Amino acid sequence: MKNVLITTLPFGKYDKSPINLLKKNNINYYFNPKKKKFSRKELLKIIHNYDAIICGTDKIDGKIIKKAKKLKILSRIGIGLNNLDLKLLEKNQVKVTYTPEPPAQTVAEYVIGLMIYLLRNIEFSRKNFMMKKWNKIIGKDLKEAKIGIVGFGRIGSELVRLLKAFKCKDILVNDVNIDKKILKKYSIKQATKNHIFKKCNLITFHVPLTKFTKNLVTKKEINLMSNDTILINASRGGIINENDLYAALKNKKINSAALDVYSKEPYLGRLKKLKNCHCTTHIASMSTSCRNKMEIESTKEVVRFFKGQKLKNEVPAGVYKK
Amino acid sequence: MKNVLITTLPFGKYDKSPINLLKKNNINYYFNPKKKKFSRKELLKIIHNYDAIICGTDKIDGKIIKKAKKLKILSRIGIGLNNLDLKLLEKNQVKVTYTPEPPAQTVAEYVIGLMIYLLRNIEFSRKNFMMKKWNKIIGKDLKEAKIGIVGFGRIGSELVRLLKAFKCKDILVNDVNIDKKILKKYSIKQATKNHIFKKCNLITFHVPLTKFTKNLVTKKEINLMSNDTILINASRGGIINENDLYAALKNKKINSAALDVYSKEPYLGRLKKLKNCHCTTHIASMSTSCRNKMEIESTKEVVRFFKGQKLKNEVPAGVYKK
Repeated sequence: MKNVLITTLPFGKYDKSPINLLKKNNINYYFNPKKKKFSRKELLKIIHNYDAIICGTDKIDGKIIKKAKKLKILSRIGIGLNNLDLKLLEKNQVKVTYTPEPPAQTVAEYVIGLMIYLLRNIEFSRKNFMMKKWNKIIGKDLKEAKIGIVGFGRIGSELVRLLKAFKCKDILVNDVNIDKKILKKYSIKQATKNHIFKKCNLITFHVPLTKFTKNLVTKKEINLMSNDTILINASRGGIINENDLYAALKNKKINSAALDVYSKEPYLGRLKKLKNCHCTTHIASMSTSCRNKMEIESTKEVVRFFKGQKLKNEVPAGVYKK
Repeated sequence: MKNVLITTLPFGKYDKSPINLLKKNNINYYFNPKKKKFSRKELLKIIHNYDAIICGTDKIDGKIIKKAKKLKILSRIGIGLNNLDLKLLEKNQVKVTYTPEPPAQTVAEYVIGLMIYLLRNIEFSRKNFMMKKWNKIIGKDLKEAKIGIVGFGRIGSELVRLLKAFKCKDILVNDVNIDKKILKKYSIKQATKNHIFKKCNLITFHVPLTKFTKNLVTKKEINLMSNDTILINASRGGIINENDLYAALKNKKINSAALDVYSKEPYLGRLKKLKNCHCTTHIASMSTSCRNKMEIESTKEVVRFFKGQKLKNEVPAGVYKK
C-alpha cells in the first residue's frame, strides 16, 4: 500500500472528492493532525515514510530530499516551483507535477479587482467615509489606464481577455516567447520591460520566480516609471525588491502598489506602514473553485502515477533549466 | 446673451472642452467662486438670474423653481432624477435633460471591483496582514456566486455583459420591462424580487429612487435572504432601509454589504461602526472618463437648446409619472 503525505492546507475541506479518490484507490494519506503546516523539523522527521507528497509552497530542498528515500512523486498544488529543488528531484528520479490551469482565472480575477480598487481610489473614499469627510474623489476607468503585463503565460493571457471585456485598448505585454496570434486576436502589443516601465501606469507581474526574474524591479527600474504608476504583484515575492519599493512608495516616486506575495512569507516587514501599499496574505488563488480543482488535479496525478498511467501535468523539462 | 449656472463640482477640471463649448457659443457661465457646492440659501438668492442650470444632485424643488423665473432648461449631469421636482419643472415649461449613457460602464466596473473585493475577503486579508496574522483565507470566484440584479437598465445590462466575461452562469435579473432578446443573448433568467432575495447570495441594485423603489429592502426582505448574502447598492440611498440593514449586518443575518449611496448624503450615521459594511462616498460614477463625457454631454444639451436644436437626452415623459 502506498503512502502519501499531504503538507498543504486546507485539503479536502470544501470538497471531499480528493480524499475519496485516495480512499477509493487504497492510498494511505496523512495530514498534520494539528491542522497547521508541518514545521521543517517535523517534515524532516517523517518524510522518509512516504512514496508521494502533495505539497503547496513548502520548501523541498536538498536536506528534505536526502531524507525522502522512498519518494517517487511530488504533486504540487499550484503553479510556482521556486520552493522546489527541481534539479535534485530530477536527479533522484522523483516525478514532479503541478496544477497550472486552475489558478489562471482566479488570479486574473483577483488582479482585476485590485486594479479597479486602486484606480478608483476606493480605499481613500472608504477612509474618508470613516472620518465623515465627503470630498469629491475621482479615479480612472480601467480603459483609461496604460496597462503593462510582465509575464504573458496562462494568467497574463486570461487577464488580457478580461481587460478587453472592459474595453481596454492600451495594453503592452512582455515575455520571452509570445504567440503572435494572441497579440493580433486582442490587438495588443509586445514591448520590452523597460518600455513598459516607462510608458505604462498600471503594471502587473505574472512571472515565475527564477534567477532571471529575481529583483526584476529595483530602484533602477522604478526610476523609469512615472509618478502615477500603480504596481501589482500577485505572482511571487522577490520579483519586486521590497526595500526599493518601500522607498519609492514612501517618497511618492510612484502612486501605489498592491502586493499579495513577499520575499519571505509570513511577511513581517515595514511595508504595512505605508498608506499607498495594499497588502494581502497570498490569497490571489484562494477561491473554493480554484482550490477544489487544484486539489483534485494534484490527487489524480498521484493516483495516475501509482496506477502506472501517463501523467497529465508533469513539469516541462524546460522549467528545470530556469 | 444667455446665462447658465453650474452648480456641480468638479466641472471642466479634467477636460476644458465643456468650458470652451460655452465660450464658443457666447454663453455666460457662473460657478461657485468658493470652489464648493452652493448652499441652498445661496442658490435661492441667485437662481432668478439664470436661463439654464447645469446641476448634479442638488435639490431643485418648489421653492427653488418658484424663484427661477428665467429658467428654461435644466441639464442634469448624471442619471438620478430624484432630486428634481419633475412635475413642477414640466408645469413651468422647463426642459429637463440628463446623461444616462456615460455612467453605465463606470458604475458597472465599480460594482465588479466591489464584488471581487467582497467575495474574496480581501479586506479581511488586508487586516490580517496589518496585524501580522497569516491565516488561510478563502473566498469565491465571481462564477461561484448566485448573482441577482434588481434593475436591469443600462447599468444592469452592462454589468451582465461584464459578468459573462467572468464566466458567470447563475444570474437572475428583475425589472418591470425586460427585453427577452437580452435574456436569451446572455442566457440569464428573469425572476421576481422575492425569488432573487431567496435564491441569490450576491445581490446588486440598479434602480432609480422613486416612490415604488423606496425601502425596496427592509427587514421583511432581508428575512428571505441566506446568511451568506452580500448586498451592493451603488444606485440610490433609500432603496435599502438603513436601519434594517444595520441590524441585519450587526446580527450577521447576512454576510456583508457594500454601499456607495445613502438616504442622506453626506452620511453621518452608524453604519461605519460595522466591519462587514464597506462604505464609500458616492464615487461609483466618478472616473475622469465618465465625468468628462457627462460634462460635455450636458453642456451640449444647453448649447443645442439655445440654438433651437433638438435635444438628444431629454428625460422621457414616462419618468415623470414615477
